[in-house]
Amino acid sequence: MMKWILPNRKILFFALIFTISNPKGYGRGIFGTFGQSDIEKIRAYRKGNEHKILAEYFELLSIPNFALDKRNIQRNAEFIVALLQKRGVKTQLLSSNTFGTPPAVYGEVMVPNANRTIVFYAHYDGQPVNPEKWHPDIKPYTPLLLTNSIEKGGEIIPFPKPNEPINPEWRISCRSSSDDKAGVMTIINAYDALVKNDLEPTCNIKFFFEGEEEIGSTHLGEILERHQNLLESDLWIIADGPVHQSGLPMLDFGVRGDVNLEITTYGPKRPLHSGHYGNWAPNPANLLVKLLASMKDDNGMVTIKDYYRDVIPFTDSEKKAFAAIPAVDEQMKKELGFIKPEGGGKTLFETFEYPSLNINGIRSADVGENARNVIPTEATATLDLRQVLGTDYKRQIERVIAHIKGQGFYVTDKNPTDEERNTFKKIAKVTSLKGGYNAQRTPLDLPISQKVIEAVKSTTSDPIVIEPTSGGSLPLIVIEEKLNAKIINLCIVNHDNNQHSENENVQLKNLWDSMEQLAAIMLIK
Amino acid sequence: MMKWILPNRKILFFALIFTISNPKGYGRGIFGTFGQSDIEKIRAYRKGNEHKILAEYFELLSIPNFALDKRNIQRNAEFIVALLQKRGVKTQLLSSNTFGTPPAVYGEVMVPNANRTIVFYAHYDGQPVNPEKWHPDIKPYTPLLLTNSIEKGGEIIPFPKPNEPINPEWRISCRSSSDDKAGVMTIINAYDALVKNDLEPTCNIKFFFEGEEEIGSTHLGEILERHQNLLESDLWIIADGPVHQSGLPMLDFGVRGDVNLEITTYGPKRPLHSGHYGNWAPNPANLLVKLLASMKDDNGMVTIKDYYRDVIPFTDSEKKAFAAIPAVDEQMKKELGFIKPEGGGKTLFETFEYPSLNINGIRSADVGENARNVIPTEATATLDLRQVLGTDYKRQIERVIAHIKGQGFYVTDKNPTDEERNTFKKIAKVTSLKGGYNAQRTPLDLPISQKVIEAVKSTTSDPIVIEPTSGGSLPLIVIEEKLNAKIINLCIVNHDNNQHSENENVQLKNLWDSMEQLAAIMLIK
Repeated sequence: MMKWILPNRKILFFALIFTISNPKGYGRGIFGTFGQSDIEKIRAYRKGNEHKILAEYFELLSIPNFALDKRNIQRNAEFIVALLQKRGVKTQLLSSNTFGTPPAVYGEVMVPNANRTIVFYAHYDGQPVNPEKWHPDIKPYTPLLLTNSIEKGGEIIPFPKPNEPINPEWRISCRSSSDDKAGVMTIINAYDALVKNDLEPTCNIKFFFEGEEEIGSTHLGEILERHQNLLESDLWIIADGPVHQSGLPMLDFGVRGDVNLEITTYGPKRPLHSGHYGNWAPNPANLLVKLLASMKDDNGMVTIKDYYRDVIPFTDSEKKAFAAIPAVDEQMKKELGFIKPEGGGKTLFETFEYPSLNINGIRSADVGENARNVIPTEATATLDLRQVLGTDYKRQIERVIAHIKGQGFYVTDKNPTDEERNTFKKIAKVTSLKGGYNAQRTPLDLPISQKVIEAVKSTTSDPIVIEPTSGGSLPLIVIEEKLNAKIINLCIVNHDNNQHSENENVQLKNLWDSMEQLAAIMLIK
Repeated sequence: MMKWILPNRKILFFALIFTISNPKGYGRGIFGTFGQSDIEKIRAYRKGNEHKILAEYFELLSIPNFALDKRNIQRNAEFIVALLQKRGVKTQLLSSNTFGTPPAVYGEVMVPNANRTIVFYAHYDGQPVNPEKWHPDIKPYTPLLLTNSIEKGGEIIPFPKPNEPINPEWRISCRSSSDDKAGVMTIINAYDALVKNDLEPTCNIKFFFEGEEEIGSTHLGEILERHQNLLESDLWIIADGPVHQSGLPMLDFGVRGDVNLEITTYGPKRPLHSGHYGNWAPNPANLLVKLLASMKDDNGMVTIKDYYRDVIPFTDSEKKAFAAIPAVDEQMKKELGFIKPEGGGKTLFETFEYPSLNINGIRSADVGENARNVIPTEATATLDLRQVLGTDYKRQIERVIAHIKGQGFYVTDKNPTDEERNTFKKIAKVTSLKGGYNAQRTPLDLPISQKVIEAVKSTTSDPIVIEPTSGGSLPLIVIEEKLNAKIINLCIVNHDNNQHSENENVQLKNLWDSMEQLAAIMLIK
């Protein structure tokens, strides 16, 4: 427990004002903890420990965590093991059958006569970074406090001294500050808050922190199968992803599946002068844009044959839950600067019913200052194909490939040989970069679903958002398949966190809220 | 003149064999120079000075020469001034009206009672470089000798000692080794060869070396106008570009015009998670591929309204000249690895009759290992639009913009404002990166055209290739407009020189041939 340091008069005054205007107790409170509810105790513990919690979190954030960076991934795993051990949790690293894959960090707290077992999941790996694209004042793996996100004019502030209050509006900028070391941090500290308040859970608590979610959780299935007994469980709580755009707490009862495809088209074997050979030598960028253009209509709907065929439509209760969520479409359109969404008039939530096909990136030669008058040798696009209940990612890939063939391409999964170049008019290399997976949904009306909803509600007087499925993806279906456990996703971070792109950040308020929600779930009777 | 060093027996034997199997005298000859024709004298001079010529050329090549790199561009200009002065040529730098633009290097040799004035043109600036794309063993601005191009397995060889023969098959790898410091080098050394052999031209010779050709010769018109009296002339010989793919010498009597366009489409103002927002937030890459796809049909023909309307077709004599050129289409298709060219069945030369529209590069976010599951914020393509006799580049740009508007886009030349984003469904920024220019052609049947053809023929027993127009572009129309001079392009480098892209190289044989051809033109009666 941290020591109390007597603040000087000015700070005392500020802290008083801050506490009065701050009913949820953000920042450090200065009052005692008598006669409190469990949630009030959790809150009081956090208020008294914000500096310590953040300092420890900064240490975790400063370890680079791209899943293919093996040395650093191992450092992350060992750091988290140490965090759990410091809290008295029995822990071990779980490996897959494949040598050298990032280990999962496992921990367990077994309770005599437990009425159920809940696994708390987060992933400690992050998306790759391109430091050049980050704002020049911040770095991907150097956690910093800011008054707001850098895009909204946030200014960097020094880490507060122990007697300085911490504003819950502040943000931490760092890769994975929100996606998803925030999950690791809030789960561990929620548990800490129980222990330090002598609040005993009635369920077994297991911790499972994955190390390769952002590259497709390729070995998650292996790990679950290999450690099936250890991981026996009734429910997985996934602490990951952004809360509702309104800022309200959010539970997701499903996720879409996902798979990435990379398509490369070919021109001449060496770059050619665009005057001497264009428009005679085939331009691979021209081939690629025509191919990609053929996959979607002007409303952004996929035109590939049978792409929507296997979709299991939303149930009435799912539609009802979606209808209860405050609509943010108009707010988001304004914030994001467009007036015509894809989807032909569907709301954002309505689009979640359908599998998507999205261009993540496209590249051929250079543009702008570096552009040259050439015919490029190849053009590449990376796509992601979100899956919904009913669709199978392998079958969807087959449909995309059939479509590409239908556009006159010979399809290969390798760079074309001279013989192939001399045989086929148009060639496309199609590869799947990462292991894909299908969608998963947990019915809203299960008793455990209702208990989790009640637990989260107990932490706030605000309404909470129940989303039958997220638009995002996690490889959750494998948990259902291997462990026969239900899965519910607790959303934990601000929606404008820039996850998956440059200048990722998390708002402190969201970390504090999530800690309370997770602790409440750990205390479900 | 260089000293003769007595070779050892082994080298003497090699040199003998080499000379016998080498009727054009490549490498160092060991025989004298009695009773020779003018061309034989030029050749003998070169044979005796190859080491010195190459050493000087390496110095020139090692100065970086992207036109926007002002400090180095100035260094190039001053180095070339020194080369001319060393040869007794009266020289000066010609500036435009605009401060800070690359100067043209001018030199003149006036002959009493000259029957005409010929300007010999080359450009000393080069395309920008991306060193990461070059083969790891070679660098863009470090000239090296290789046994062949690096793509064909060429090996780096040390610069030969004075007594070691130089193989004309060798290549120099360096940015601008072919495009177009080769022009500067061969013009200057051709003149040197005349002087050293006491061969007096009957025409005034002027040298004009431009420093911003690769960024569109934006100020060439200004320079020509400002120095109109100095540059009074009857004929410009442009020493630039690759010879025929068969290796035969080649003269071009025309060039296409060119202009670059950059098109950017817009999605959300910040990158979004492709699960939570796709396919709802508009994907700029999807907008761009559909727009670009709408501009060309499956044969690569441009579908923009009236794009081919203003074309002045080839004359019968131009068609006849093209027909006399050995067809290389099948050879090139095999070498370049494709079987279906663009153009709907036209030969390479037949496509030169038409304006082109070519994607030079396209970019949106990342692909491959760096790809992330995002909706990018924007997508950009750089195009080049080649012009032919009759088409006007400004009018063609207007047609492209009208087409983009016809596809439902609001077109701007700046980044869109929030107000524009809130008003228009689809937005495209269209800018022209570099100053464009139109095509130029010199009639084949002019007496001066015939004299130049005869001069080049006099250097070889091979047939020569007469191309009524090149597929490539040079801003020659401005010379015709400002100075009322005719223009003929002498092609000087190997066709597989990778000009405009990575691993640029030049074959020594082509440098030696071009020196002879340029000297022969300088001696036209």
